[in-house]
Amino acid sequence: MALRTYQQYLESLQAMRPNIYKFDRLIEDVTTDPATRRTVRGHGWTYKHYDDEKYGDLLVTKSHLTGEPISRYLSLIESAEDMWQNSRMKRAAFQMTGTCTGGRCVGWTALNAMFITTYDIDKEMGTNYHGRLLDWLKQAQERDITVAGALTDAKGDRTKTPSQQEDADSFLHIVERRNDGIVVRGAKLMICGIAAANEIFVLPGSGYKEPDADYAVSFVIPRDAEGLTIVETRHPSDTRDEEDGFDNPVADGGITQSFLLFEDVFIPNERVFMAGEYKHSLSAVLNFIGPYRSAIGGCVAGQGDVKIGAAVLTARANGLSAKVFQDKITQMTINNETTFGMGIAAAAMGRKHPSGGWQCDTVLSNVNKVHVATLPYQTNILAQDIAGGIAETGCMPSYKDFTSKKYGHLIQKYMKAKASAESRARAARLVEWATIGAGVPGCMHGGGSPDGAKLVIRAASNLEDKVAHAKRLANITEDIQEPVKKK
Amino acid sequence: MALRTYQQYLESLQAMRPNIYKFDRLIEDVTTDPATRRTVRGHGWTYKHYDDEKYGDLLVTKSHLTGEPISRYLSLIESAEDMWQNSRMKRAAFQMTGTCTGGRCVGWTALNAMFITTYDIDKEMGTNYHGRLLDWLKQAQERDITVAGALTDAKGDRTKTPSQQEDADSFLHIVERRNDGIVVRGAKLMICGIAAANEIFVLPGSGYKEPDADYAVSFVIPRDAEGLTIVETRHPSDTRDEEDGFDNPVADGGITQSFLLFEDVFIPNERVFMAGEYKHSLSAVLNFIGPYRSAIGGCVAGQGDVKIGAAVLTARANGLSAKVFQDKITQMTINNETTFGMGIAAAAMGRKHPSGGWQCDTVLSNVNKVHVATLPYQTNILAQDIAGGIAETGCMPSYKDFTSKKYGHLIQKYMKAKASAESRARAARLVEWATIGAGVPGCMHGGGSPDGAKLVIRAASNLEDKVAHAKRLANITEDIQEPVKKK
Amino acid sequence: MALRTYQQYLESLQAMRPNIYKFDRLIEDVTTDPATRRTVRGHGWTYKHYDDEKYGDLLVTKSHLTGEPISRYLSLIESAEDMWQNSRMKRAAFQMTGTCTGGRCVGWTALNAMFITTYDIDKEMGTNYHGRLLDWLKQAQERDITVAGALTDAKGDRTKTPSQQEDADSFLHIVERRNDGIVVRGAKLMICGIAAANEIFVLPGSGYKEPDADYAVSFVIPRDAEGLTIVETRHPSDTRDEEDGFDNPVADGGITQSFLLFEDVFIPNERVFMAGEYKHSLSAVLNFIGPYRSAIGGCVAGQGDVKIGAAVLTARANGLSAKVFQDKITQMTINNETTFGMGIAAAAMGRKHPSGGWQCDTVLSNVNKVHVATLPYQTNILAQDIAGGIAETGCMPSYKDFTSKKYGHLIQKYMKAKASAESRARAARLVEWATIGAGVPGCMHGGGSPDGAKLVIRAASNLEDKVAHAKRLANITEDIQEPVKKK
Amino acid sequence: MALRTYQQYLESLQAMRPNIYKFDRLIEDVTTDPATRRTVRGHGWTYKHYDDEKYGDLLVTKSHLTGEPISRYLSLIESAEDMWQNSRMKRAAFQMTGTCTGGRCVGWTALNAMFITTYDIDKEMGTNYHGRLLDWLKQAQERDITVAGALTDAKGDRTKTPSQQEDADSFLHIVERRNDGIVVRGAKLMICGIAAANEIFVLPGSGYKEPDADYAVSFVIPRDAEGLTIVETRHPSDTRDEEDGFDNPVADGGITQSFLLFEDVFIPNERVFMAGEYKHSLSAVLNFIGPYRSAIGGCVAGQGDVKIGAAVLTARANGLSAKVFQDKITQMTINNETTFGMGIAAAAMGRKHPSGGWQCDTVLSNVNKVHVATLPYQTNILAQDIAGGIAETGCMPSYKDFTSKKYGHLIQKYMKAKASAESRARAARLVEWATIGAGVPGCMHGGGSPDGAKLVIRAASNLEDKVAHAKRLANITEDIQEPVKKK
Repeated sequence: MALRTYQQYLESLQAMRPNIYKFDRLIEDVTTDPATRRTVRGHGWTYKHYDDEKYGDLLVTKSHLTGEPISRYLSLIESAEDMWQNSRMKRAAFQMTGTCTGGRCVGWTALNAMFITTYDIDKEMGTNYHGRLLDWLKQAQERDITVAGALTDAKGDRTKTPSQQEDADSFLHIVERRNDGIVVRGAKLMICGIAAANEIFVLPGSGYKEPDADYAVSFVIPRDAEGLTIVETRHPSDTRDEEDGFDNPVADGGITQSFLLFEDVFIPNERVFMAGEYKHSLSAVLNFIGPYRSAIGGCVAGQGDVKIGAAVLTARANGLSAKVFQDKITQMTINNETTFGMGIAAAAMGRKHPSGGWQCDTVLSNVNKVHVATLPYQTNILAQDIAGGIAETGCMPSYKDFTSKKYGHLIQKYMKAKASAESRARAARLVEWATIGAGVPGCMHGGGSPDGAKLVIRAASNLEDKVAHAKRLANITEDIQEPVKKK
Repeated sequence: MALRTYQQYLESLQAMRPNIYKFDRLIEDVTTDPATRRTVRGHGWTYKHYDDEKYGDLLVTKSHLTGEPISRYLSLIESAEDMWQNSRMKRAAFQMTGTCTGGRCVGWTALNAMFITTYDIDKEMGTNYHGRLLDWLKQAQERDITVAGALTDAKGDRTKTPSQQEDADSFLHIVERRNDGIVVRGAKLMICGIAAANEIFVLPGSGYKEPDADYAVSFVIPRDAEGLTIVETRHPSDTRDEEDGFDNPVADGGITQSFLLFEDVFIPNERVFMAGEYKHSLSAVLNFIGPYRSAIGGCVAGQGDVKIGAAVLTARANGLSAKVFQDKITQMTINNETTFGMGIAAAAMGRKHPSGGWQCDTVLSNVNKVHVATLPYQTNILAQDIAGGIAETGCMPSYKDFTSKKYGHLIQKYMKAKASAESRARAARLVEWATIGAGVPGCMHGGGSPDGAKLVIRAASNLEDKVAHAKRLANITEDIQEPVKKK
Repeated sequence: MALRTYQQYLESLQAMRPNIYKFDRLIEDVTTDPATRRTVRGHGWTYKHYDDEKYGDLLVTKSHLTGEPISRYLSLIESAEDMWQNSRMKRAAFQMTGTCTGGRCVGWTALNAMFITTYDIDKEMGTNYHGRLLDWLKQAQERDITVAGALTDAKGDRTKTPSQQEDADSFLHIVERRNDGIVVRGAKLMICGIAAANEIFVLPGSGYKEPDADYAVSFVIPRDAEGLTIVETRHPSDTRDEEDGFDNPVADGGITQSFLLFEDVFIPNERVFMAGEYKHSLSAVLNFIGPYRSAIGGCVAGQGDVKIGAAVLTARANGLSAKVFQDKITQMTINNETTFGMGIAAAAMGRKHPSGGWQCDTVLSNVNKVHVATLPYQTNILAQDIAGGIAETGCMPSYKDFTSKKYGHLIQKYMKAKASAESRARAARLVEWATIGAGVPGCMHGGGSPDGAKLVIRAASNLEDKVAHAKRLANITEDIQEPVKKK
Repeated sequence: MALRTYQQYLESLQAMRPNIYKFDRLIEDVTTDPATRRTVRGHGWTYKHYDDEKYGDLLVTKSHLTGEPISRYLSLIESAEDMWQNSRMKRAAFQMTGTCTGGRCVGWTALNAMFITTYDIDKEMGTNYHGRLLDWLKQAQERDITVAGALTDAKGDRTKTPSQQEDADSFLHIVERRNDGIVVRGAKLMICGIAAANEIFVLPGSGYKEPDADYAVSFVIPRDAEGLTIVETRHPSDTRDEEDGFDNPVADGGITQSFLLFEDVFIPNERVFMAGEYKHSLSAVLNFIGPYRSAIGGCVAGQGDVKIGAAVLTARANGLSAKVFQDKITQMTINNETTFGMGIAAAAMGRKHPSGGWQCDTVLSNVNKVHVATLPYQTNILAQDIAGGIAETGCMPSYKDFTSKKYGHLIQKYMKAKASAESRARAARLVEWATIGAGVPGCMHGGGSPDGAKLVIRAASNLEDKVAHAKRLANITEDIQEPVKKK
């Protein structure tokens, strides 16, 4: 095979066993069902633009395994430059689809995390996970599949470890080890872009200790694997996905998140990349969050670009000049460029791992996660501020009312401003969609919470080094210890 | 009559002519229709608690006209203390219903604004609007009706005044003056709580000059007046209002906003309070925004209280202690108390108008408007931060999936944490509802935009007085003028 | 006697025993010494304006003891209105002197705190402190003295209580109880405006338990009491106080803070208001911080007004219009009015104590303390932003260089802009003085730290009430307890 | 010669003609005079650590002209990696000296800006400035001199261009063109680190049009050039530089800024790099601000590191654990890493100029300037918050009082906490010094104001591209133009 066409991508999705539900209804064809077609089209953007003059270099790169042209989403990240392309590609994807195409990027980051982690496990434990991963990766590149990624477990009672839980399945775990593979049970929750994926790359959700060894598990499976049931979650205004008209203004982009329910799913050995090596489960997670928290800055910047555009468009449709709002637009731009830039910096300050993978700077990537959990909200406020009351909560009649035979002409009469009523409504709906509607990605807790990122920052920053600078500068020779009793 | 019962209130709504639509469908009974019943019940809270030990004093006061007990929502605001009760009542209403019961408060503020404005018009022009208003008010108190208020016009092209618009109806205006009354045409948009109201109090939307005299119009009409068509607007996740289960978690509260379409509506003289006195249209607006922008601080604080509670509840359901988040909770508290407090201060620093009405401090009430357009957003972020990924965008399966016969048990198995799956889902849905769902009021642009408030602050602050202090302190005697050419 | 003249005030200071030092030098006359004359003149502003048309009503009120006109700074605060005058007076004082005249306000707040506290002690313990306080207060009003206040102890090791300290004097305490009075030892640090005061009102610095009973002590003494040594602390750029010219641009205002060193100071019984009643020491502090943290919002607003004026003046002197910076000026205004307003609100929501004193709302006054520790810093940034590089760190040659015979003409040639070089330098020096120089008051930690205020907010806010609202709204019946183990 | 020793550096400064003044006093020896010795020692840090294991690679690089080891401060910036070393070196310099060593970095940036600009001028105009610059640079590298940089003119009335000013000298300009060189007159103000420099590299302060051609001038001169008089400006608490003891706690670091007064200074041709090519004056400035606004993020981060250390040190000296303040410390860390990281990103996203120089990304470097003008202020607030009242405004007695024979023992008795009184005072003075004292650099307006940076961001961001994304996503086909009339 090689790089697939958009049509081939759609067909590959249609060829899979239907195992996705929403509203207690089985989705027969993810490419046409209102609940999933937008995210499929959004992910399909990547397949459509392999040859694009502007985006081709972002979307296609060379396989380090075969030298053949492959989707970047299936490549090894070997350098800062590769990460920068990652950030740029994600920014472009958000600009083009309006929101997240996370069914590709999480899986990509997961396979890169396990590329490094399996190398380390093999080195320490004498296993052969790394080779397995390369074998899988090579054929994944050849098939040009879309791979989603899954980390977050159900977690149960947050005060307990996996093995302490009343329900042992609260975290996904190995329930049987067979000669030819493992059997797993549990769930992965809030998993992005599943409906658009061919396969799902699973990682442990956290670092574990010995009693939780069975929870240290990583593998990759077809989306329609036997025993796997998928339920799509809701998102704001999600039933508009099923409506006609423009109340969901974006036709070719949309975010979905799923619950993956594993009822004793069998994974053959060649697709298992960790199965009990609990000491490496934290590394797997850290190897994931480094590039992930760097590149999401690009995502958020790309959506921020759309928010700027949508807000300005609405203002102009209202009859107001962008100049009136130039300070706000500049602040939105600063927010976008800050998350984009911090990701670039985290990559730049990274280091090469012996496996050949690239590890982004821990402090900078986690600082970026905090910004990603903060700045887009300010951008949302500014977008709603600029776009006015009709955009703030989408305070306009529905498309059905807009086209009502009884009074639709009056709605349109009174919604006309500088631009036509329809253009104005579409622009305002886009602001609503991106700031308080179906286009809002879960950027605060996606890829981990900001509080988690702060813990990493704290651990990875050398506080005592800073104290030493201060002591030397102030010429203090007394040994001043950290007091034992807290305030 | 006198203070009505909740039942009487419902009956009064049912007795009106159906003229409200949503989704191109006529709403036959606002008290039972899914699109409007929540807001009716929310407004009805006030009728239910007239005798309540805790809330009675907030909800009932004495008529300055008759000395009889009346709904505070139909009273004259005569003092700072009255305004403080206003703030407290609104805070309580938001705490009890989760969101806005704006069908009472806007009308109340409007009638108080016109109480002062008609006094001034009569004094200057020799008209008798004030007496008319008192007559209407007296019987409104006796009937104990719910009165909504309407200011915002369609506005058309923002670069033009009303009479310059291509479509003369872009702002509501008088199209005919008859002996017994006036006829008006145009629209009022984004009007809150209409479905819960018996009558609608209309104010001019802005200050006008002579060519726009016909746009300077104020009156009160029954909600079902002949020629008036009402279309409910959408709000985030609004179709959940029609669903079973708890995906819209709040049964007895909800916000609606409508388009009011006036097709040559006749208003009898006794209900007209301004009809061409353009010089007083700005005063009418300013007399409105003073108390309105003071008291919305209470609204926002009340919803903020709910957000704190909902976030903590979700965290506890997740198995996490509120102590983990105490800094965030304190910040949310500070936000709530700041908007509440600034409203109290604006009332305290107010002054008595010769008519007997109370005028809140201009600078402080408008400063509060800016806080109201800012701090609740920070509170939302913190609520989502505390409550986690399931609350951030409501990333959970639907109620239908939750109760699916096929896999509902698995959803519940994996959503169980410290608390039951259902409690956890309900708590998280409440956070979603209040921060990114149907419970989000339009607090940024409602009652005017923050940029408008900043213009008022600028105009009402004495900059030169501050410059004079600086000059004196720095002992500068040179006359330093404002340079003419801008940067 | 009665209200004193400014001249009488100066003479009263000159008549006292010199016991204040700075730079290891005894200050013979506080009214003329460069280290103290500015703060004396600043405090003297109040004496000069008793009859002022604009300020008289703020500065003079009627004694609730005698009905005679007295300085407001020696009055009982009996109502919200009294507190509002307090806020207004402090705002005016900062506008007129550029900075803090804390030698009057802390003492005033202290005597009001002990007015309430002694009432409660007497009621509970059968003592007669309240009568003593009234006796002292009556003659203090008659003598029209300036009374500073002192709370903060040396504190030693923050992990230990007073009686656990290695050095028992780390907190001021009673070392001897005699028939005619008590003897105290210890220190009060960072005490404001001492050089301008006739007497000092001392309060315990915190709440104490039984082993620390000797630390629960309150009294008032003459500033020149036997055994009391006072050392003035430094402040930014403090040696400019001794220079000629305009590098300290403010002649009649300035803040000082002192270390008070008590070496076995005797206090006669009639001036002792607490002497071991440890159970009431926390109340004394809380009765202090309520009005104090309300009214400092006025202080900070008044200085903020000066910062706006100084920044605009510098911009105009540079040749730039205030219009260029209008968004920044509006934000500074919002900051000022927020701290002012929150103090007003804290007073408005207060309650009458049985003693006749007024107790401000706990939550609102402490929320204001947090704003006071935050917003003025933003105002400083904006002032420096508007005023440019010469104001940011005062990056201009000294007055000596400005008037140098060798090259002073060149400095003046190149500093001339729209305004003269001298006006421009004066304006910029005023911005420097107020934002990074001698005029910066210790508003973050003065009157207690913001973290302390947050603890009070946390304790005084009813979190469970908010959780109950959320539970009811979400229709959750399960009992969801606070989890025991922390995250 | 080659890399110089610290001793050689000092001797080179001592060998120059004294032409620097402060307080109307000629500074005979900048290496020993209290007003300048700290900045000399701070700059000298670079000479001392050429061979340092930790810092050597930052401080020394290879000349692209000769291949010899040279000071990085005299090197050509050829790549993103070179810029990253720039950022790292500046961060290290701030960590080691506590503040700015701007006498090296501005000159370095200036010579790099003119490296590119002279290449472009020569290409367009056929001049030979680039060769001159290389000649000068080669011998500057050989002599290993310290080169300061100067851009900011006196500017006069901000509403007028240079040639419109009443005083033609308000901007530095060419007053005579001779065969062997040019003669210039005017001033450069607020120039950093001059006392520590051997030479000064001068750039035009802005972009100019034809009538202002004589103001488009760039050259390099010895600091003691004939006709050049230098006056040091003040900074906060600057007279403490002359005091004994620890009230200025930093002995080997300090920032100075000067007024450079050019009274008809002759510049020989071989040192002139622009003389009338007004079309290139804006490029010169832009070529300067790119790398400058990138690398200042490192400066600010380095000082931020010191602020964290100093605040924690003070807290521990007070007896409080850093854990109490961990959220604040993390926020300070985020601030530091954000400015550092954005500079890294601006370099990473840069491009190679045909001359061989590296041009940083315009948007990202200017976004960083805005952060540099904002985040360090928040870091200051947090440092003062953590360190308490004694650090906030340095509210402690002077060193003279601390060691007073009369009462010094009492000061020390009461300042002792967990750590000794002296350590505690030194730590608190360091916080004061870095946040409100002599160590505060002019980071808001240094290298241009944040408002200027915002203008560049606005111009360099493609707003219409963002609007186009929004239009496409919302499927709007109508042509919506920017309305002409402003709000």
